[in-house]
Formats: sequence, C-alpha cells, structure tokens
Amino acid sequence: MKEKFYTYIKSLQNKITDRIEEIDQLEKFKEDIWKRKEGGGGKTRILQNGKVFEKAGVNISAVNGKLPESIMNYLKVNESRFFACGLSVVIHPLNPMIPTCHANWRYFELYNEKSEIIDQWFGGGQDLTPYYLYEEDAVHFHKVCKNSCDKFGKNLYNDFKKKCDNYFWNSHRNEARGIGGIFFDYLRANSKKSIQDWHKFTVEVGNNFIESYFPIVEKRKNIPYNKKQKNWQEIRRGRYVEFNLIHDKGTMFGLKTNGRTESILMSLPPMVKWFYKYQIKPRSKEETLINVLKKPRKWIN
Amino acid sequence: MKEKFYTYIKSLQNKITDRIEEIDQLEKFKEDIWKRKEGGGGKTRILQNGKVFEKAGVNISAVNGKLPESIMNYLKVNESRFFACGLSVVIHPLNPMIPTCHANWRYFELYNEKSEIIDQWFGGGQDLTPYYLYEEDAVHFHKVCKNSCDKFGKNLYNDFKKKCDNYFWNSHRNEARGIGGIFFDYLRANSKKSIQDWHKFTVEVGNNFIESYFPIVEKRKNIPYNKKQKNWQEIRRGRYVEFNLIHDKGTMFGLKTNGRTESILMSLPPMVKWFYKYQIKPRSKEETLINVLKKPRKWIN
Repeated sequence: MKEKFYTYIKSLQNKITDRIEEIDQLEKFKEDIWKRKEGGGGKTRILQNGKVFEKAGVNISAVNGKLPESIMNYLKVNESRFFACGLSVVIHPLNPMIPTCHANWRYFELYNEKSEIIDQWFGGGQDLTPYYLYEEDAVHFHKVCKNSCDKFGKNLYNDFKKKCDNYFWNSHRNEARGIGGIFFDYLRANSKKSIQDWHKFTVEVGNNFIESYFPIVEKRKNIPYNKKQKNWQEIRRGRYVEFNLIHDKGTMFGLKTNGRTESILMSLPPMVKWFYKYQIKPRSKEETLINVLKKPRKWIN
Repeated sequence: MKEKFYTYIKSLQNKITDRIEEIDQLEKFKEDIWKRKEGGGGKTRILQNGKVFEKAGVNISAVNGKLPESIMNYLKVNESRFFACGLSVVIHPLNPMIPTCHANWRYFELYNEKSEIIDQWFGGGQDLTPYYLYEEDAVHFHKVCKNSCDKFGKNLYNDFKKKCDNYFWNSHRNEARGIGGIFFDYLRANSKKSIQDWHKFTVEVGNNFIESYFPIVEKRKNIPYNKKQKNWQEIRRGRYVEFNLIHDKGTMFGLKTNGRTESILMSLPPMVKWFYKYQIKPRSKEETLINVLKKPRKWIN
C-alpha cells in the first residue's frame, strides 16, 4: 500500500506543478530533494514571484523511523516505529480576488517490534481561503469535493465538510480560516470499508483537486484590484500564519519529527501584515467575507 | 504586593510611551482599555506607522480568576485561582539598523480556597533582536542589564543571560531569536531573598530599561538603508513571528487564559516576508548576524 500511494502522490505532484506553470507562464518550480537524518526524505517544489502565483509549494515526503515521544502521546500509542507519506499543496496567488488554496493527502502506518503493521490510515482534504468572497467559487469548490465523496458514501461529504469547518477554526480569533472544503483523518479499515477502499477514495479526491481549484484561478486572475484590496489580502494572510503556527497539527507534526523546516513552512504567505485593530467598513465586501468566516455556511443544498 | 507592583508598572508604562513619542515626533499612542470576562483587564497602547517606529506596543494587564486546566498542568498545580499582572513592551522600528526590542515584567499569585496566597513570584526580562549587528549596541544593552543585576547578586546576570539565550531559541531553525539580554522567572522567596527583594530587583531592571534601549535608537535612527536591507529586516521578522507563535509561553498563556487577542498579538511585526530558502552572501553583514545567532556570544567579560 505504501509504495502504491507514494507512486500516486508523485504523479499527482507532477500534474499539479505542470498545471501551475502552465497558468503562471512567467515562473517555473524549483525542486529540492532532501533526506531526513532519522529516515526518509522528500521532494520540495516551490515557485515564487510568478505572474499569477506569488508563492506556491507542492511537496511530497515519505518519512519513517522511531515515533517521537510527543507524537506518541498525541496519538496515544506506545508503538514506536512509523511510516508516513503525503503530498502537501499551498498556493498563494498574487491577485486578492483568487483564494489561497491548501490541500494535503497522506498515509500513515504504525509497526510493532516485528515490523508488522498494527495500524494504518489515510487522511487529507482541501480547503479555500478567499480574501474576497465569490459565492459561485465557493459553491464550485464544494461541489467538486462533494462529487468525489458521493461515490463512496452518501454522508461522507457532510461529515468531512463539518470536520473541515471544525479543524480550520482560528479559536483565538473566533473565526474560520476560510470557507472550508473537506477534511478527513484516521480513515481506517472498518466493517464497511477496507483500507483499499479508503485508498481509492483518497485517490479520487486527489484526482479531482485540479478541477476544484484551477478553474477559479483562471476566472479571477485578470480581475483588476487596487492597493487597498492587496493590503486587505496581506492582513488576512496574517490570520493564515496564525492558524498554521498556533493550531495546525501538520505543522506541529512536521516540526516535532525533525522534518525539513523550509519545506514545512513553505505554507507561510510571501508577504504579510499585522495591523493592530484593523477596521473594516460596515456593509463592505470585506465585511461580507468576515460574516461568512464567523459562521461557516452550507454551500450546497 | 500586587497593588504596589501594578502601580509601578502603570507609571513605567507612562514613562516608556512618553519616551517613544518624544523620539518618534510624528505619531502618538492610541489607548484601549479592555475588560476580561473572567476577571481583570488591561490598558493597551499602540503606536503605528511612526517616523522612527513602525509599530510599538506598551501594554499593561492585571487578570485574575480560575486558572485554565492547560495552565494548571503546565505549572503543575491543583490550585485554581490566580492573579497575574505585567507590562509588555514590543518595539518594531522602521530602520533595519535599529534592533527590535522586547521587554516584559510580571508578577503572579496563586490562591487556595480560603483566598490565601500559596505561591507568588516575579518574572520578566528584556532582549534585543537586531537585523544588522552593531557589537557596541549589544554590549551597551547587556551592560545596563548587568548593572541592574549586580546590585542584587553577583551571579544573577550570568544566570539570567543564559536563561535568556535558552528561552529565545528558535529550535526549529537552530538559531537564537536575537542577541539576548536577561530573562528570569519563578523568582520566589528563598533563604537568601524575600519576595520584597525580588520586587525591588524587578523594579530596578524596569527602571533601567529606558537607558538600555533608547540610546541605541537615537544612535541608529538616521543611518541610511536601502531596499535590500529593508527586505532582510522583513524576512528576519518572519523568524520573530515563528518564535512568538510556536514557542513563546507568554503568548500561549495569554491566548489560553482568554486574554485579549489583539493585545497579545501586538507583538507581531507590521510587515513580514517569508521567502523560501532565502540565500545570504558569504562574508556579508547578514552572515555576520546569522553567525552570532547560531552561537550566542558572551557580550561582557
């Protein structure tokens, strides 16, 4: 299973970086291949200062070894050897009318002392963080996510949509990071689904990622914007940083397993502002966004 | 004790904000008085977009109530009522030749069910984060810190200097946040010092803060700088954000005790950049700084 999934995410990494370069036209990805001292490594691809994309990171990694104690406590396990692989995508477009997009698909195995698998699961999801809300974009993104889910069970989308809203919650700001998407974790074999089923599901979700996001980029990339709107994007990106560094478990896992810091923190936006008590105008487009973030909405009936 | 110390930090807040306004000439502090639902409140003063200071926060707070469980676990206590007050200073100058400065002085009391004090201590310190290293500035800052410490014990400066280097360590980057200063915590009554002694010590350190930092500001504020140097400052500010959101216990305490988020996060710099794998030139001034951050130095013999 681990080889199969790793082969898949390698090919998906290629498809996503190809698509980004095709849209950007100006800049290309730079690749870094790195090794982790304790076991495994990864392939980090970053594009910076593009025409459409201010910063985009599309990284795969496959790490293994002894599970650090902090993660053992977190997962509530005693077993100490693990394998984890995944593909992470974070895209920060230049134009504030295009949402930031994040996606991640991962597979995890835990072993006993005889190197037998004692636990295995899939996790992942994708979500959007707009700076200006285009409702049709949010609906499109959620529809593609729902279509992938519906092939595997009629409640999956609702479940995973809710998990996404719960997970990407900036509790110290009392608002969501963005307009959500789907989020799933610990997808283990159970009475209804085998681990093979969850593998197929994760692949289905991954395959539809390109269709969920890039049509939105194409649609919004030429909308004119002014300095004030760019400023708003940079201030909102501050909330993105706050989420990733204060609340995100993936970032914590990466930093605690001695992952490659530059690859983990590629998620941070290229240019960010913190302005004390930034005020928005009543009934402005900025307020429309905040209202949606304060109270996550149902995007599909 | 708590009234005495709170009165002191109120007057020190005034002195510091007066000094900052006097140097800045362009901008004035704006004040917000806030209340905490669970008990207490504070007075936040922020100056933004000044001539010399891009952002400066000088805040006092005095909070009390039931200790949140996460903090109880952290402090390893069962007692559930507390009082905490403190003054926090974070100054982000515009000119990259002036270091960012942070200081904090605080007092903590824990109570039993009869509202008797069962534990009390002082904490605090001050440290510098330069973007370009002027050794004489680092020496001056440390000298003033040492002079305050020496009046209360000959090993205090060395102890607290080491604690500062250990505390402000960005472990995921394997470098210090800045060039240190002093850091002390859990200064409790013991066989050599009463809590009154530690009160006097903390006041002494606070009184000398103005002399430790502002002469450096005056000396460097008119040094010309170029776009590349400003860019370097903004990239290094990213490390400042990473420390505060990933490692800083004060930020964690504030957010977990339902403090005022805008006051806590006033520490974040106004404009920050994250550039993947930013490269510095060998034997450049940027490299000189990094070398000192990788291996904290002794500034006074």
